[in-house]
Amino acid sequence: MFEIVDRDACGRIGRLRTRHGAIVTPAILPVYNPNIPIVSAKELEAEFKAQALMTNAYIIHRDPELRERARRGVHGFLGFHRPIMTDSGAYQAWVYGGGIGLSNREIVRFQEELKPDMAIILDVFTATSSYGEAEKAVEETIRNAVECVEIRERGGILWAAPIQGGRFVDLVRKCAATLSRLPFDIHPLGTLAPSLMAYEFRDLAEMLIVAKTHVTPARPLHAFGIGHPIVFSLAVGLGADLFDSAAYALFAKDLRYMTVSGTRELRDLKEFPCNCPVCSRYSPDEVREMEASDQVKALARHNLYVTFAEMRAIRQAIRENRLWELIQERVRAHPKLLEALRYVLSKYKDDIERYDPTDKRSAFFYSGDESALRPEVVRAKRRLGRVSSDLIIHRPFFGPIPYELRGVYPFAQSVIPESLREDARGIGAGRIKVPDERVVRKIVDYQFGENASRFLRGITVERSRRTGRMRYVRLGDRLIGTFRPSDGFLIPTIEGGRIIKRALPFPRGRVVVSDEAARFVMSGRSVFAKFVLDADPAIRPGDEVIVVNKDDRLLGVGKAVLNREEMLAFSCGVAVRVRAGIGVEG
Amino acid sequence: MFEIVDRDACGRIGRLRTRHGAIVTPAILPVYNPNIPIVSAKELEAEFKAQALMTNAYIIHRDPELRERARRGVHGFLGFHRPIMTDSGAYQAWVYGGGIGLSNREIVRFQEELKPDMAIILDVFTATSSYGEAEKAVEETIRNAVECVEIRERGGILWAAPIQGGRFVDLVRKCAATLSRLPFDIHPLGTLAPSLMAYEFRDLAEMLIVAKTHVTPARPLHAFGIGHPIVFSLAVGLGADLFDSAAYALFAKDLRYMTVSGTRELRDLKEFPCNCPVCSRYSPDEVREMEASDQVKALARHNLYVTFAEMRAIRQAIRENRLWELIQERVRAHPKLLEALRYVLSKYKDDIERYDPTDKRSAFFYSGDESALRPEVVRAKRRLGRVSSDLIIHRPFFGPIPYELRGVYPFAQSVIPESLREDARGIGAGRIKVPDERVVRKIVDYQFGENASRFLRGITVERSRRTGRMRYVRLGDRLIGTFRPSDGFLIPTIEGGRIIKRALPFPRGRVVVSDEAARFVMSGRSVFAKFVLDADPAIRPGDEVIVVNKDDRLLGVGKAVLNREEMLAFSCGVAVRVRAGIGVEG
Repeated sequence: MFEIVDRDACGRIGRLRTRHGAIVTPAILPVYNPNIPIVSAKELEAEFKAQALMTNAYIIHRDPELRERARRGVHGFLGFHRPIMTDSGAYQAWVYGGGIGLSNREIVRFQEELKPDMAIILDVFTATSSYGEAEKAVEETIRNAVECVEIRERGGILWAAPIQGGRFVDLVRKCAATLSRLPFDIHPLGTLAPSLMAYEFRDLAEMLIVAKTHVTPARPLHAFGIGHPIVFSLAVGLGADLFDSAAYALFAKDLRYMTVSGTRELRDLKEFPCNCPVCSRYSPDEVREMEASDQVKALARHNLYVTFAEMRAIRQAIRENRLWELIQERVRAHPKLLEALRYVLSKYKDDIERYDPTDKRSAFFYSGDESALRPEVVRAKRRLGRVSSDLIIHRPFFGPIPYELRGVYPFAQSVIPESLREDARGIGAGRIKVPDERVVRKIVDYQFGENASRFLRGITVERSRRTGRMRYVRLGDRLIGTFRPSDGFLIPTIEGGRIIKRALPFPRGRVVVSDEAARFVMSGRSVFAKFVLDADPAIRPGDEVIVVNKDDRLLGVGKAVLNREEMLAFSCGVAVRVRAGIGVEG
Repeated sequence: MFEIVDRDACGRIGRLRTRHGAIVTPAILPVYNPNIPIVSAKELEAEFKAQALMTNAYIIHRDPELRERARRGVHGFLGFHRPIMTDSGAYQAWVYGGGIGLSNREIVRFQEELKPDMAIILDVFTATSSYGEAEKAVEETIRNAVECVEIRERGGILWAAPIQGGRFVDLVRKCAATLSRLPFDIHPLGTLAPSLMAYEFRDLAEMLIVAKTHVTPARPLHAFGIGHPIVFSLAVGLGADLFDSAAYALFAKDLRYMTVSGTRELRDLKEFPCNCPVCSRYSPDEVREMEASDQVKALARHNLYVTFAEMRAIRQAIRENRLWELIQERVRAHPKLLEALRYVLSKYKDDIERYDPTDKRSAFFYSGDESALRPEVVRAKRRLGRVSSDLIIHRPFFGPIPYELRGVYPFAQSVIPESLREDARGIGAGRIKVPDERVVRKIVDYQFGENASRFLRGITVERSRRTGRMRYVRLGDRLIGTFRPSDGFLIPTIEGGRIIKRALPFPRGRVVVSDEAARFVMSGRSVFAKFVLDADPAIRPGDEVIVVNKDDRLLGVGKAVLNREEMLAFSCGVAVRVRAGIGVEG
């Protein structure tokens, strides 16, 4: 139902299939209230190109007339032709105190009648400062999830089981892990909205990264009730795939104007700092002169335009591997956002590093001292290990690195301000004559781990005639790898893979696939996640890997697009893009 | 012709009056090429609400047919009803090498025939690495400026004399100072575009701040040929009032897509990260499927939408005193922009501080370690002097401050990340009983300078019943000042002004006005800049000041809206908003 198409940071471009078509994530589902539709479902579909929307089954249920009309199917009822998610009323139950007068069983059954594409069990909102209460809320949510699995009848609905626990991250962790073992399709993370409203971005960020790293990666993580573009990029970078929110409408009703750098009051604006169709056409004075309902509609439309554009900007940033840079730009909207970023980058650096891809399409941009906490830096330092070459150069920002790695990502593919260059010492930029073999071996060890280059002896290197850079690596007359100009990494051939494999004990550097998949890999076809039996836990998305069968026989070489945890969790989508197989006769 | 309406950083909202109406600055004039108008003048006026446009007199002149038609007046010729600026062809002269075949005299005369609102002498572009050549270019530019003054005949045109000197900032400085003494209305800063194109933002920033601090502040500084929104906020923050550029069209022709965080190629975009009418309606694929000319037009329109929206966002940020925060967000687009900001904030901190207002409407937001270089911090440290109270508290980020100033801007009105709070030591947040008089006196000394509170003895303080904060300060039964809740500063009454004045030797804390203005001030009317004879050089825009005549007789108290240099340079607009005069009988 869900697969990863592209990725950056802990975020990903995913494809979530539903009966009404696929949703490209990260995506936001605007909440549509059939009682007070400020922006119509038709407008959401045609003008705003909303991929999907969210509506509230409880609100439909409590009005007998709406209930009857909606029973014929929520798509016809709303007049929306793309995927629809229904919510259960858990938030209303919390707001009204005494519950919504419907049991989990009743709201699950009613949602089945509505025939949405996605539906949510009745979870228990945990906006509480009492650990005991939060624990009970988690238990009840899990009980309701189990009940839903037992009673649901109709196929074709993707069921969502929310992760509760509030600010008690150990509860979030347990709840995420427990729900991951139940047959669900989507996991909303509940109780984020109060932190957003209180500008407690650190709590919000911590809940997200804890949920992200404990829920199965094979299902979309949904940032429940989060609809302010100020946090979208950070939330996606920490793992959120879906968002939903009525904020665009609720803010509009209070004449509040959303921007990616915060909220403004209409009354405080002399000019609109935005270029959406509303803001390009009207001035704040002109909006203020409108009828009250038109003012609200104008602001709701602006809020939607900003919301959808930010989601597009985030998806585009993922495709360009510039998501960290976008986040670092956006967190300047408020010191507490910057603080939240620093906090999670520092406290959860190893968790975050596991998801961040290694084959970035863009250079590393320094954007502030928190750049030092980014996973690219954490990883580079770990993969460097103790730098004990006799040829060390100091790179501004990165510190001492072996001279042989000076052309490799991120050391060469980074833009660092000159003021940080003061710390550059040691050997300068001048060329030193280092044997090619030594350089190749250092790069291979950096890429594949200690000793990986053990058997790379007696190799020759052919350089690009145009750039003079190392291009082809041969052993005798066999090509064993090619250097990728963009990041200086070695892309091994089958021959190269064989030599590196020999140097590394099982399962290092390897993805192990089932016998079913062996012949496909041998003939050069990609490895699908469902055929992966095991993999080196040190493999990161983007790494070059060796594909073997369970007897450690070489089948092919390729690029991992998932980490080990993801390879084991996903049942659809590619795990390794195979570059070459050993051949079916091999 | 030009006055300051509002301000932040070294930027300002100004009003530049022309025969075709006023331009609110900062503003960008899109360049309109009558030979290849990708976006028509009518669209620029109606759809994009361009306040003014720029066209090239040389390009009109070289085509005999255009020349004849335009001679009837450039407004009718272009079909544009708002202010038009004509350029002289200096850039073309540089591009083509051998000049444009027209003398300064001829192009000045021809521009007079066109009857634009603003026109530019023939300056000499200084994109050279030779100091000698740059010096000659500056000399010739100045000669042409003098010639223009001698020969120009027609009134009603605002004449612009470009500041040249290129990257040789001492030449920029001299040229700016020399041209300021000639009767011109606008000063473009030339030769910025090559630095922008080479991403040499540090050079661009340095040229701007040097020009800003050496050209008369009474005329708009025009960032010649700068049209990429990536630098607008930084350029405005360093003093640019006007911009012009054909970049929106030139980039579009190369299928390049502008954003506030950089340029993208259309071919690299899978989604548009923007919400302008073009990007909300079409996907990149849909644009790529258009006819070639429609592709260019779609991108040009997008580029214009981004350009104008960024200018609105900057003006709105000035009004909210959030310009530094906006700049700090925007410079994250590229490490060289961040570097440029750091560089100028550090090298030119005292220059920048002179323009930055002291009465900010927004809290100080920490956005990265360069925040420590901001003028609010530089000023606070200078005004604190040596902190030698026996009651010192440590404020995160600000360091030690006297306990009495804990409620005063920026110490209390700042949002600092918690991770910086570690350095908070000394006396905590708990309340210590400090006599009110001691607090009042410390605040007055911080605001008005050492010893200003010398005669404030025996005062009583009335607190707000609601907030408990200090509100009214009395000496006996005379009110001497009120504390402004937003920033904790004392707003003195006439009585307070009298007492503070007595404590400070002339001209400290004072604005000296001519006798013509005396009665106006005494009756409570504002001080216009043209009546200012002198002022304390330590006065900053936003400071509370004492207005006196040349015999140091008290006339009134009020708030400075200009610094000394500006008060002396401007011939129109308000210099001090008088809060109270001593009365005409006083």
